[in-house]
Amino acid sequence: MPDKDDHVTQMAREIAEQPLALDRTLSSLLPRRAEIARLARGRHRLLLIARGSSDNAAIYARYLAEVHAGVPASLAAPSVATLYDARLDLADTVTIGVSQSGSTQEIVEALDWARTCGSATIAVTNVDDSPLARTADIALLTGAGPERAVPATKSYTTQVAALAVAVDAIAPEPGRLDAGFAEVPAQAQTLLDAPGDLDAMVAALARTEEVLASGRGLCFGTTLEVALKLEETCLRPVRGLSYADLKHGPIAIVDHELVTLLVAGPSGPTLPGLVELAATVRGKGSPVLGIGGDEAFRAACDVALPGPTLSELLAPLVLAIPAQVTIERLARRLGLDPDAPRGLKKVTQTD
Amino acid sequence: MPDKDDHVTQMAREIAEQPLALDRTLSSLLPRRAEIARLARGRHRLLLIARGSSDNAAIYARYLAEVHAGVPASLAAPSVATLYDARLDLADTVTIGVSQSGSTQEIVEALDWARTCGSATIAVTNVDDSPLARTADIALLTGAGPERAVPATKSYTTQVAALAVAVDAIAPEPGRLDAGFAEVPAQAQTLLDAPGDLDAMVAALARTEEVLASGRGLCFGTTLEVALKLEETCLRPVRGLSYADLKHGPIAIVDHELVTLLVAGPSGPTLPGLVELAATVRGKGSPVLGIGGDEAFRAACDVALPGPTLSELLAPLVLAIPAQVTIERLARRLGLDPDAPRGLKKVTQTD
Repeated sequence: MPDKDDHVTQMAREIAEQPLALDRTLSSLLPRRAEIARLARGRHRLLLIARGSSDNAAIYARYLAEVHAGVPASLAAPSVATLYDARLDLADTVTIGVSQSGSTQEIVEALDWARTCGSATIAVTNVDDSPLARTADIALLTGAGPERAVPATKSYTTQVAALAVAVDAIAPEPGRLDAGFAEVPAQAQTLLDAPGDLDAMVAALARTEEVLASGRGLCFGTTLEVALKLEETCLRPVRGLSYADLKHGPIAIVDHELVTLLVAGPSGPTLPGLVELAATVRGKGSPVLGIGGDEAFRAACDVALPGPTLSELLAPLVLAIPAQVTIERLARRLGLDPDAPRGLKKVTQTD
Repeated sequence: MPDKDDHVTQMAREIAEQPLALDRTLSSLLPRRAEIARLARGRHRLLLIARGSSDNAAIYARYLAEVHAGVPASLAAPSVATLYDARLDLADTVTIGVSQSGSTQEIVEALDWARTCGSATIAVTNVDDSPLARTADIALLTGAGPERAVPATKSYTTQVAALAVAVDAIAPEPGRLDAGFAEVPAQAQTLLDAPGDLDAMVAALARTEEVLASGRGLCFGTTLEVALKLEETCLRPVRGLSYADLKHGPIAIVDHELVTLLVAGPSGPTLPGLVELAATVRGKGSPVLGIGGDEAFRAACDVALPGPTLSELLAPLVLAIPAQVTIERLARRLGLDPDAPRGLKKVTQTD
């Protein structure tokens, strides 16, 4: 898939590295499940602390923990730790802090707070010996390698992979996902080699000023990540909403001026609702773009790119890839630099 | 405060009923704290199930539970219950389902699922003998009275009040908020009688096609509710984002074409960050509107309406009122019918 111009962006290179980065991450972390299970022994709650793209990875982990491992999970509200300094009893909890750089002060502080509340702690980070890694009982390093483009791509998918491993480790029967894990790098490569009609997808997104992204369940985190990436890279407002939240209000503003982007896993109980949503939204005049899903889903969309054929439980490890490829092309088509979007830095500091 | 035209909308009438509705709700529910505490005995987790405006009330309850009661709390992902039918051990949990009508099938099913997972269950609903009320161990009825306008106003603030009572009941020392509870109806009345410069606020919102709403912590749920109400009533895209999430990406699209609406409590550790955010956003050319906060906050905004002088813990019981009044006026100014926004029904069914 040659680029149309000579300059290959850093973002494009990092997108293309994902099969290898996912392979490195899974190979190094899958053998550590027994260690994670030991840390989690007697603890039956999962708490996730993250912001931005890492938060989108954490949302996936939350669904996977409940659906696959039967472990009640939630996303921390960091201000409860860093600003309100609430005292909670987290003796029954494993807390995972997720940060590519491992240096976002808010996340480091909140993970340390969880430790003082009695929680076992895990860091998922791309930087060895980072403050987050040093704060945690166990550091799970993503094998993304240095990421230089501001929009997270390989650091995001490898976080998703690391979180899948961590959740599988605390499942009653770890290992049930192993056949799927083994397929991940090849599926990532297939999505890069045979992305479908990218030109049509880029053209459809280039025509609109505003995008609404929707998805549900295990692939909802991917939906939010696609929305965030599209917004910060292409500088147009994009909202990510669950299928159900969309119906509670925002559906009122869906019309021909909006493009709706649906993100779906290849199977699973959320898929029929998304196929139905595609029809509803088209009925309101909004063009519907799709990523992933099955044949019926893609047929219900105006333009769609195929996703992986992994089970819904692991599809989020690679489902963002078709969107990443689209977004990088769209940014260039819009005359933007995908590597350094206006107004953003690689490491965001919040308190 | 006479209306400019003869027709008084249902929404305006329901907004004006809030001091009485809040008084009814608090008077009937505060005496039930011992009953709630008995149900919660030995359970040290709170789970909240809701959608739409009720979800925004639940987000407040989540912060209040952690900050005021020291009880770890989270929002349920309803699909985990209704679509994935995950089996979780919720024997340590009190689950609260929140629905004005008590008839949203998804919420009823998810609360029933929590019960089968071992949780104690509470319904917060405005309709006695509704399916949600019948499903729960304890039903806490909001005293909003019938609500006919589609945008939730008095049903929302009374939900927030009912949730505050429920959380206070499970706090280690219930009753510490009683002085504040006693002030709520009068503070609601003050916000209606002396709303500040509504004309300026309505004019500033009428000038823009797009609004970004931001807030944090205990008042973040109010922020999301203001965003949802403005969007569904006035039919323009409004996003609600936490102060921290805004800095992780979406800040890139803040410019003069966006109006930023900040929602703040009168005090508390999140306030300095919001005053700083007001300056940052103004520096990017976006007009900043404010609701609530203190004098310094309002001085940092281009236009601001005062909020309550209650503690930050209880401010969310009435903080939406200045926004509700603004939105009702704005809808009429835009030639819209605030009582029946296009495309929405009073009871939303999701599965």
